[in-house]
Amino acid sequence: MTKPVWRPAAEAGAWKGVEVLHYKAEGSAAFKGVTRRVLFDDPELACQVRYFEVQAGGYSTLERHEHLHAVMVLRGRGRCLVGDGLYELRPHDLVSVPAMAWHQFQATPEEPLGFLCLVNTERDRPILPTSDDLACLRRDERIAAFIKF
Amino acid sequence: MTKPVWRPAAEAGAWKGVEVLHYKAEGSAAFKGVTRRVLFDDPELACQVRYFEVQAGGYSTLERHEHLHAVMVLRGRGRCLVGDGLYELRPHDLVSVPAMAWHQFQATPEEPLGFLCLVNTERDRPILPTSDDLACLRRDERIAAFIKF
Repeated sequence: MTKPVWRPAAEAGAWKGVEVLHYKAEGSAAFKGVTRRVLFDDPELACQVRYFEVQAGGYSTLERHEHLHAVMVLRGRGRCLVGDGLYELRPHDLVSVPAMAWHQFQATPEEPLGFLCLVNTERDRPILPTSDDLACLRRDERIAAFIKF
Repeated sequence: MTKPVWRPAAEAGAWKGVEVLHYKAEGSAAFKGVTRRVLFDDPELACQVRYFEVQAGGYSTLERHEHLHAVMVLRGRGRCLVGDGLYELRPHDLVSVPAMAWHQFQATPEEPLGFLCLVNTERDRPILPTSDDLACLRRDERIAAFIKF
């Protein structure tokens, strides 16, 4: 079967012919209300483009890894932790997650947060924080108030 | 200098700290009213993400190459040729340009067309159509009416 050249946008955060996937296996890590869609994935492309949507009040897993994330917000509102920084997120904002930086994306309580996330196709697996890592992160009051785990 | 983690969107199709570049050197190929911005480019990422904006009535170069394009429309309206297909473009539509497929992106006469274009960082250079290629493309009336060269 030939891959389709054109996949039109359907309702917000959905595309014709693009399946909604689980973000992660339930119970494998802490997260709330996140879906995943793979928008581009081709053996001749060295990267994958995924679209994640975090429901209002939801959050992605607090984690880190060697591979980079190149993120663009597509819809909604939220905040993210990257390293020791907290950032407000609005449509089309760009976020670069460096190697081994702790990161978590959260939607606002009122609105979902949808974002593109580009990664190398060959990449390492995420690492979850140990209790020591969490203790370190929580030394910063702003981060302690932000993170969900 | 540390690269910024967060680059907020400014006005539509613009980002804080992201420079507007020429699309191509003037005279190197046929195009009209196109600008280029490099949104993500990192030695540890195997791909680059660029944002192209085509002014109302403008068009990108009709060309082809071995490397793939993974495209998402961000704003405006337009049409594109990919291979022997013509497609209407609206925000968030996805377009996959296969290897060696002739392609051209055009804005409508009334609105600009802004789109993300993902490519492998290591890639071949575009090839322009010869007069024979143009003659072949023009055998299809719809394509003959569409292409600008």
